[in-house]
Amino acid sequence: MTKPLIGISMGDPAGIGPEIVLKALQDDRVRNAATPVLFADAAALRQAMTLTGIEMAVRTVEDSKDLNPDEKTLLLVAGDVLTEPVPWGKVDGRCGQAAFACMRTAIEWVQRGWLTAIATAPINKQSLQAGGVPFIDHTAMLAHFTGVADPMTLFMVDRLRIFFLTRHISLRQVADALTVEGVEKGLRRCELCMQQLGVAQPKVALAALNPHGGEDGLFGEEEMNVLTPAVALARSHGINAVGPVPADAVFSQCLQGYYDAVLSLYHDQGHIAAKTYDFHRTISLTMGLPFLRTSVDHGTAFDVAGRNIADATGMVEAILAAAEYGERVRSFNETSAT
Amino acid sequence: MTKPLIGISMGDPAGIGPEIVLKALQDDRVRNAATPVLFADAAALRQAMTLTGIEMAVRTVEDSKDLNPDEKTLLLVAGDVLTEPVPWGKVDGRCGQAAFACMRTAIEWVQRGWLTAIATAPINKQSLQAGGVPFIDHTAMLAHFTGVADPMTLFMVDRLRIFFLTRHISLRQVADALTVEGVEKGLRRCELCMQQLGVAQPKVALAALNPHGGEDGLFGEEEMNVLTPAVALARSHGINAVGPVPADAVFSQCLQGYYDAVLSLYHDQGHIAAKTYDFHRTISLTMGLPFLRTSVDHGTAFDVAGRNIADATGMVEAILAAAEYGERVRSFNETSAT
Repeated sequence: MTKPLIGISMGDPAGIGPEIVLKALQDDRVRNAATPVLFADAAALRQAMTLTGIEMAVRTVEDSKDLNPDEKTLLLVAGDVLTEPVPWGKVDGRCGQAAFACMRTAIEWVQRGWLTAIATAPINKQSLQAGGVPFIDHTAMLAHFTGVADPMTLFMVDRLRIFFLTRHISLRQVADALTVEGVEKGLRRCELCMQQLGVAQPKVALAALNPHGGEDGLFGEEEMNVLTPAVALARSHGINAVGPVPADAVFSQCLQGYYDAVLSLYHDQGHIAAKTYDFHRTISLTMGLPFLRTSVDHGTAFDVAGRNIADATGMVEAILAAAEYGERVRSFNETSAT
Repeated sequence: MTKPLIGISMGDPAGIGPEIVLKALQDDRVRNAATPVLFADAAALRQAMTLTGIEMAVRTVEDSKDLNPDEKTLLLVAGDVLTEPVPWGKVDGRCGQAAFACMRTAIEWVQRGWLTAIATAPINKQSLQAGGVPFIDHTAMLAHFTGVADPMTLFMVDRLRIFFLTRHISLRQVADALTVEGVEKGLRRCELCMQQLGVAQPKVALAALNPHGGEDGLFGEEEMNVLTPAVALARSHGINAVGPVPADAVFSQCLQGYYDAVLSLYHDQGHIAAKTYDFHRTISLTMGLPFLRTSVDHGTAFDVAGRNIADATGMVEAILAAAEYGERVRSFNETSAT
């Protein structure tokens, strides 16, 4: 079977991105699952090779005709921002520009159908800003270049699949952000995303908001007034939604296979679950785009950059997930579009 | 070395308590660490032996002079509420009364100094109520019989140690429940509890309330206005407190050994962390009492009671923790009292 071509953006050159990408590419599971196409500036790649002691044969490619799914050497789409090594672990406008240019090119390649999916290493918000890049993060870039207004984030580790109804709002605002219609729409979007990943009839559990799911109104009424009616509405539309399930049980139950996914109501609810369960192996998938994008779930870690001690587990998992699910997302979208 | 005498209350006879206690007592680590003293009605014990096929030699004891730390047979302090087997998995006033009577006797024995600590199997709120028992749970019984108004709950699994600033309030009420003085007092109590467990200078991390710890006020101001000043106040009093640390990182970091304990701000914050990390091995310690009480962290599980499929891992961990820390808590309290 032909291996999928997976684009990998190096992330911020001053962070741990290039290091964990090189380390991940040494993993046998990655080699067997994917043919990587690296988007990186040659200077950043050389710097990371020196740091890690990992020397790989590289072939620079400029067009789809240069691509070969059975390629053994590393395929490189070279960025041209950096001309020399950069200091490790520093905010640097050139690094922000270089990371952005690589990401933009990777998006172009996957949009043209030259790649099956992309996996991204972490970038740095401050370096983007210092470089005058008009996007605050990967998701903003993806939304802009694909024209998809509201991509959906999915956290994944083992059997845990976590979606988020709200994210970057204060905890104080969460309860008021919940409406029957909004929660029902969230459950519907979870179903669609899971179908894109190949689960035809996903069972989606809604996390509760209050301790013990509110205990019949004793510790909060959102379960009675909003969440239970939202699940009922979703079910009336044929969605296999269950809950609300007390949040201290729902993630553990998902890990045990009771559900295909959990819709968490707020940022920390789902983040605490995944990252406490396994910080390094948790990855993030951006759903709702014409293609799949996977990502490590940590930052540039400037405090350990340049020391060759970064853990590449998340990068391995991100590339493996891109290879496993990329084609399903692509073909689901093509089928839906016809 | 003499093994500590650990009291074990059977919990609700119609639930999984008697079953998991018997199973836990077969574990070599439990046999090596503790000499168990079981508080159970003989009818309930027989019923659980029949269910599990575990037959143990039993010696009924009535007084401290009957106790022998090197005892090989199971020491039983027999309750006298039940005269016959009870239906599995049903709310039953007799079961509530029997569970309560065993717990009350166990508390008496440990208060007299006859036991080092107690480990409790789960009881059922509805059965307590049906039996006219004037307490809603174990904690209420412990508070009443020890005269300690506000015992402190500590969740424990591997290196994770989690305290709770608030518990049974709605999520909507959490932000307003935080004050500089209240959080500082919480940090101080965490320190004291950890000292009772033998950590002389514990490093306690305060969990943040908002995503990313609020990102300098972008997603909530409680970090700036309440949590950061509370940590500063605690530190000015010599407490080794740190934070607020974003809640999706703090538990993972505690597992890695960065901190001795985490103070979580609300019920689900800490519960999600521990129970998603390892549902069955998470146990609960009641701190601030004259003695240590440990507990499994799940309920009576009426849906699986009587089927011999209950997981005894938590009961094993609860007994082991009682054996490991019971003497430290007792001697710390005796030293402090003099």
